[in-house]
Amino acid sequence: MELFPQNKIIVGMVGLPGTGKTFIAKKVARYMEWLGNKTEVFNICHYRRDMFGENEFTAEFFDPEIAENAKKNNECAEKAFKDMVKFLEQGGDVAVFDGVNETIEKRREIRRSLDVAFKNFTLIWVESVCNDEHTVEDNIRIQVSNPDYKDMDVNAITADYKNRIENYRKKYQELSKENDGENASFIKLFDFGSQVLVNNVSGYIGSKIISLLMHIHNKPRPIYFSRHGESLNNTEDKVGGDPDLSERGYAYSKLLNQFVQEEMKQRKITKNTKIYSSTLRRTIITAGAIDVGIRPVPLKILNELYCGSFEGMSYGEIEEKYPNEANDRKTDKLRYRYPGGESYLDVIQRLEPIIFAIEKSRDPVIIVAHQAIIRCLYAYFCKHELEEIPHLSVPLHTVIKLVPDVYHANEYRYNLERRNRQSFYQKRSF
Amino acid sequence: MELFPQNKIIVGMVGLPGTGKTFIAKKVARYMEWLGNKTEVFNICHYRRDMFGENEFTAEFFDPEIAENAKKNNECAEKAFKDMVKFLEQGGDVAVFDGVNETIEKRREIRRSLDVAFKNFTLIWVESVCNDEHTVEDNIRIQVSNPDYKDMDVNAITADYKNRIENYRKKYQELSKENDGENASFIKLFDFGSQVLVNNVSGYIGSKIISLLMHIHNKPRPIYFSRHGESLNNTEDKVGGDPDLSERGYAYSKLLNQFVQEEMKQRKITKNTKIYSSTLRRTIITAGAIDVGIRPVPLKILNELYCGSFEGMSYGEIEEKYPNEANDRKTDKLRYRYPGGESYLDVIQRLEPIIFAIEKSRDPVIIVAHQAIIRCLYAYFCKHELEEIPHLSVPLHTVIKLVPDVYHANEYRYNLERRNRQSFYQKRSF
Repeated sequence: MELFPQNKIIVGMVGLPGTGKTFIAKKVARYMEWLGNKTEVFNICHYRRDMFGENEFTAEFFDPEIAENAKKNNECAEKAFKDMVKFLEQGGDVAVFDGVNETIEKRREIRRSLDVAFKNFTLIWVESVCNDEHTVEDNIRIQVSNPDYKDMDVNAITADYKNRIENYRKKYQELSKENDGENASFIKLFDFGSQVLVNNVSGYIGSKIISLLMHIHNKPRPIYFSRHGESLNNTEDKVGGDPDLSERGYAYSKLLNQFVQEEMKQRKITKNTKIYSSTLRRTIITAGAIDVGIRPVPLKILNELYCGSFEGMSYGEIEEKYPNEANDRKTDKLRYRYPGGESYLDVIQRLEPIIFAIEKSRDPVIIVAHQAIIRCLYAYFCKHELEEIPHLSVPLHTVIKLVPDVYHANEYRYNLERRNRQSFYQKRSF
Repeated sequence: MELFPQNKIIVGMVGLPGTGKTFIAKKVARYMEWLGNKTEVFNICHYRRDMFGENEFTAEFFDPEIAENAKKNNECAEKAFKDMVKFLEQGGDVAVFDGVNETIEKRREIRRSLDVAFKNFTLIWVESVCNDEHTVEDNIRIQVSNPDYKDMDVNAITADYKNRIENYRKKYQELSKENDGENASFIKLFDFGSQVLVNNVSGYIGSKIISLLMHIHNKPRPIYFSRHGESLNNTEDKVGGDPDLSERGYAYSKLLNQFVQEEMKQRKITKNTKIYSSTLRRTIITAGAIDVGIRPVPLKILNELYCGSFEGMSYGEIEEKYPNEANDRKTDKLRYRYPGGESYLDVIQRLEPIIFAIEKSRDPVIIVAHQAIIRCLYAYFCKHELEEIPHLSVPLHTVIKLVPDVYHANEYRYNLERRNRQSFYQKRSF
């Protein structure tokens, strides 16, 4: 919650090419959206491609000493800025301005323009600093798929990208109190690691961004979601409670074990994989059947959406006895809170620590939990809007496997009760 | 919310004398308690006084080259550590270990001892670094009231305290990745200002501590709380709603204006004072009567505890129609949540931004709000336990003035309807 919720928040990226700015910008935007803020990224590179075509942006284009090119770059930045202002004016909450923003003067100019556009706003700069050669080289490798380079070979790309970095370095001025003033709000992230320097960042959004930046990295690793095997309450359409599994549920737990064993044979799952369940019996039993020498950790925050005084009742019973409650829930399933229980929005708030734990893990993660819980987590990684969350399809006896890379989430679904298990693949762009 | 709520959290202070460690330690503890964690500070200085008497701790005592004194200092640290472990074992959630902890070896030893004591714990170091001479001198001035110096004059104290700092400086090793390892969790606070360096701090508590440290300073300034003038619902004992003031309420708003004018004449309130109200009519009208050239800012987060579907009902009506709800509320007023509305605990969560805004302000702050809201804010500054909050006395037509200094909150209460206005003074030690 912000002190002034009507405030517009602008997150301005700063950093040389190859420092992972776009990745960070997308992560910040995704997290802000998941927390309920209308958010968009304005990426100057995309404007460059739109305005000046594709496949002509070798290092020369970014040489500040070539006046014509500097002018073109400024035009892109101006267009992106204008669209950003429009987005915020039309009801946007948070905008991420993704560019190099390499000089004190450029950053001052952005602040001045924001001063003109908005009465109240908060501008937070986020700089990615990479002193470690390996991190930069990792990031350059990602550029192989950069549309600026669509017809070039890998070595040429690497060489050119290094030149692009050097061209920006000529005029680069890092964020600091001395450069940007004592009151500038900024966060410097060092070597994509877990160290950040924070200057004058206050408010809820600011502290959320700091927390997020302490956890992210760009190493792809699979994330597996499974609901518990069918429970005795599932068979009776009852909500909540702490029931045992049905026979079919126990059979699923064995299928899940087989599935994980196979993933391990294929080295998708390593010995360092983390397995989390809730503290309810149905997930502890299901996760407990996974026999790969990793002890599942039960976490209370993964427990199912709590139905308060309706726990243990069937949907039919609720509808009959409390038609108003049933109707409220139907009208707005995202915000509906069971009497004495939780809403989907409550659940999203409490899931923050597990989101951060998954983000931070460099090893695979297996989550055995419940329908509402997996809907919320899945929505975060697959970029679904809040309103969609209560309606996302997360069926029983199906493993959802996500392999997030820098700009995509690759999603696989395996219905373990079918012979042909893999039933679904989708690459989701962010 | 933590991923592993059973985890014990230890906040270890690091810093030369005169860098405000004890102030920071108390602030961190106060905030943690207010958020519902059982918290205690273990201050090595207090142990020193208990174990070796008062008034004999001149700089010599802290000279690492005098072996006998170094031994005595270690004994104090060990005793404090033992008590801390006992506190955590007996149900404590967060412990703040307040000492100089000036060497890598001392910090390693603390981690080793914690490893022995607890299976799961999180150790976060907080270092206060003062390079600015003025900040150190300000902090030394506070030492005039240090019990170590009870019979000395100001100049002698200053000289001796500077020697104490120099004695510690001989062996001081700051917190860093190089000194304490990449995985060490630490927060460095620079010149008590708004810049912090954060290394590998994750989790809810960690991010709360970072946020708090971005806002605190040790400049005393008054904080004024007033409820709105009596409303038409007050006169009928009804909860919630958005009623106008009663005649008596309007009269109070004029008295409040007079009171603020007088405080201004006495220079207690300056032109830079911030005045906040809620967005409900009764506080907007009350704050609006204050005529000192400062425009009150209405904040939604200061709105009264929301009574959901019971808004506008009288307590008698609730008791008659919903005896179970009335009874639940009576049994646990702190946790009781109105149907579709809020509990005191919900209110505490949403008040975080205004706590931070008050902490950050170096100018006086006037809050015109509601009973439940002021109870929560008052409890934070006057160190009341959560369970007490719903029962704290915050009467209508009374101004509560707090003047927090480093180790105390001075509380004054003014019943503006009485001729002899100041009805109460208390100095509260933290």
